[in-house]
Amino acid sequence: MTIELINTGSELLLGRVLNTHQQWLCRRLSDLGYAVQRQVMVPDTATDIQQAVREALGRADLVIVTGGLGPTSDDITRDLIAQLLGKKLHLDPAVLAVIQQFFADRKRPMPANNEVQAMVPEGATVLPNPFGTAPGLAIPVDPNPYRAGAGGSWLIMLPGPPRELRPMFEAAVKPLVLREFPLESAFACRTLRTSGVGESALQERVAPPLAALVAAGLEVGYCARVGQVDVRLIARGPTAAGVVGQAEAVVQRLLGEFVYGYDDDGMAGVIVQLLTARKMTLALAESCTGGGIANQITNVSGASAVFPGGFVTYSNEFKQASLGVRAETLAAHGAVSEAVAREMAEGARARLGTDFAIAVTGIAGPTGGTPGKPVGTVFMALAGAFGTEVQHKLNAYEREAFKQVTTQQALEMLRRRLVG
Amino acid sequence: MTIELINTGSELLLGRVLNTHQQWLCRRLSDLGYAVQRQVMVPDTATDIQQAVREALGRADLVIVTGGLGPTSDDITRDLIAQLLGKKLHLDPAVLAVIQQFFADRKRPMPANNEVQAMVPEGATVLPNPFGTAPGLAIPVDPNPYRAGAGGSWLIMLPGPPRELRPMFEAAVKPLVLREFPLESAFACRTLRTSGVGESALQERVAPPLAALVAAGLEVGYCARVGQVDVRLIARGPTAAGVVGQAEAVVQRLLGEFVYGYDDDGMAGVIVQLLTARKMTLALAESCTGGGIANQITNVSGASAVFPGGFVTYSNEFKQASLGVRAETLAAHGAVSEAVAREMAEGARARLGTDFAIAVTGIAGPTGGTPGKPVGTVFMALAGAFGTEVQHKLNAYEREAFKQVTTQQALEMLRRRLVG
Repeated sequence: MTIELINTGSELLLGRVLNTHQQWLCRRLSDLGYAVQRQVMVPDTATDIQQAVREALGRADLVIVTGGLGPTSDDITRDLIAQLLGKKLHLDPAVLAVIQQFFADRKRPMPANNEVQAMVPEGATVLPNPFGTAPGLAIPVDPNPYRAGAGGSWLIMLPGPPRELRPMFEAAVKPLVLREFPLESAFACRTLRTSGVGESALQERVAPPLAALVAAGLEVGYCARVGQVDVRLIARGPTAAGVVGQAEAVVQRLLGEFVYGYDDDGMAGVIVQLLTARKMTLALAESCTGGGIANQITNVSGASAVFPGGFVTYSNEFKQASLGVRAETLAAHGAVSEAVAREMAEGARARLGTDFAIAVTGIAGPTGGTPGKPVGTVFMALAGAFGTEVQHKLNAYEREAFKQVTTQQALEMLRRRLVG
Repeated sequence: MTIELINTGSELLLGRVLNTHQQWLCRRLSDLGYAVQRQVMVPDTATDIQQAVREALGRADLVIVTGGLGPTSDDITRDLIAQLLGKKLHLDPAVLAVIQQFFADRKRPMPANNEVQAMVPEGATVLPNPFGTAPGLAIPVDPNPYRAGAGGSWLIMLPGPPRELRPMFEAAVKPLVLREFPLESAFACRTLRTSGVGESALQERVAPPLAALVAAGLEVGYCARVGQVDVRLIARGPTAAGVVGQAEAVVQRLLGEFVYGYDDDGMAGVIVQLLTARKMTLALAESCTGGGIANQITNVSGASAVFPGGFVTYSNEFKQASLGVRAETLAAHGAVSEAVAREMAEGARARLGTDFAIAVTGIAGPTGGTPGKPVGTVFMALAGAFGTEVQHKLNAYEREAFKQVTTQQALEMLRRRLVG
């Protein structure tokens, strides 16, 4: 079963927009046990789109194409693919009625150019779009003229906006894929997410004891990310789950203390789970991360049960007024110091009455560094019933990466305390 | 001049990691006047990598390959490309010395498997990596066996971690590209970023008056994003700048009030600029965005001049204690209400003594909705010397998109006030 993904959009190749479909679709398909073999991105030009679709149909059982189904003049995917496959387009009255209703519900007149979104290639299945005007389309390409002798393929077109594509995948694409391409062999994939150990050091520890399982078909991947390294374990065939389970046990035995989560877990989600299970609460006092930790925590549904709130204290005056940081401490040590981090965390914990408080103060850059405290310097404090712990790090990354790495490290401090 | 980009990494095709290189490299190249024609992503397997490189060399003058230069067993790109091009690898003592120094500086022993990163294909130029251990490699493929009669090509390999790839591009790849591929014709690209107008309505307004310029070679693209729509204007050739300038004037005349920024501008950057120019300050009181607005503002270097701080007030108790929201207001209207948004904004402005304060309170979902206040309901307040303005929106998106759209709208309220 071969799957290829084609993302269309000149704005993508001009780097104006981040392609989030690729990760999302690959992830959902791999969760279902399917692997995407190749992803290609081409601009909104007829030659490029048709060439990419032809090549993909020459190799793949399923080709998924995203983008170009909108109402504007650069949305040409539908027409080009119908042309390539020799399928006529017709105006589908049911689809048109849905689009008209979409605008009626929003009390807006329907622009004339939205009508093109009701054009459907012959033989195509319409995939409803409850969150927008462009329906998806699934076309059986059988026989597949670009892959003689290999049986038919499917071609699925999905709209570009993620909030339309994602629900459509779940409601319409997933059932179609499971029905048309039943899994022939078992597939197991487990990702262990680690914090606090480097990629090389990690492989040196786990690779030798995993060698026997690798010989038996285990695939091991390592991936260094912002403030963390993922270890990915994959196996196929009837023993897949057992092989991956054994491999996971090996990694846990050697590196368990560094493993903060699995698969899709983010650090913030792990923290919210751990606090929820313990009926404990967290407050935040952020200077250099500027709300980044709070933003991560509140991306987790259910965060309100453990997170009553926090402070973003950029100015020294506000550190004093809101958290009770003392003027003498600021004068003696500077805002970026162990002493100020400690007073911030203790102040936030006292004011919010939480079990824990995290505080961070540092120099995100690119300006503001000094020889003694270069850009990237950060002090992170964790206050709790146990007392207050402060860590000092040098995270010499650009501004946003600095905030992300610091967020990860600050939450890891709390995680170690919660599981320790 | 044809450029293709190949991203290698099984973790990418499994959807475990977001491919940020694609956008970043395409963006930087297009800023320099070069367009990437195609991007392909393949897993870390020998057949896939070699096939993708062969195909790209068959079409392109420049092929950029990312990933697979790390020290672990799945980092095989260097070996595979050297093999494909028939180039021997040798251990480069200068590169090895740099890697040894990298570990010495960090007071860590060098793992033996990092030595592979000092292997260099014959004829390759080494691109130094000041932020990691894997150097980049630039290989002249001349003659190019996969593209007979078309002259030579270049193949550049870059390391996977963004904090290594990006500085390497600026320091080593950009000068090489400018030297080897001098621009033959002018190129102009301008993106106007709008907030508050839909994609179809926008095209209906601007497409007819732009028709003459399109006939003269202007390319117009529309791209709907979270809470905004971009209009992209591109032209090539000696009149490029003039054509794009005329087109921009048309869009400004028709839609100027919706245009919040240009090209790379983000809304938060625009707000920081506007406040800085006016020597004015902003405070925040965030409930449902949970620090998302503060995080956006503090991603902007220089934010500290206009943003002394803010509150993330998830619980009602903390809304009262920190912002002075009254218990009677909460009891009478509920936390998600115009009255509470108003008291939050006014409280934050009074406590921080700022010119403006933004407050948001809403239901991010997926739970917590009621028939009267469904998931997506949000009240946004802007307090200033002018008084307090409150807007009520229904942002029926999933949790993170809800936070992003709400952030965009809340900052747009302030932008309109600042430029109005």
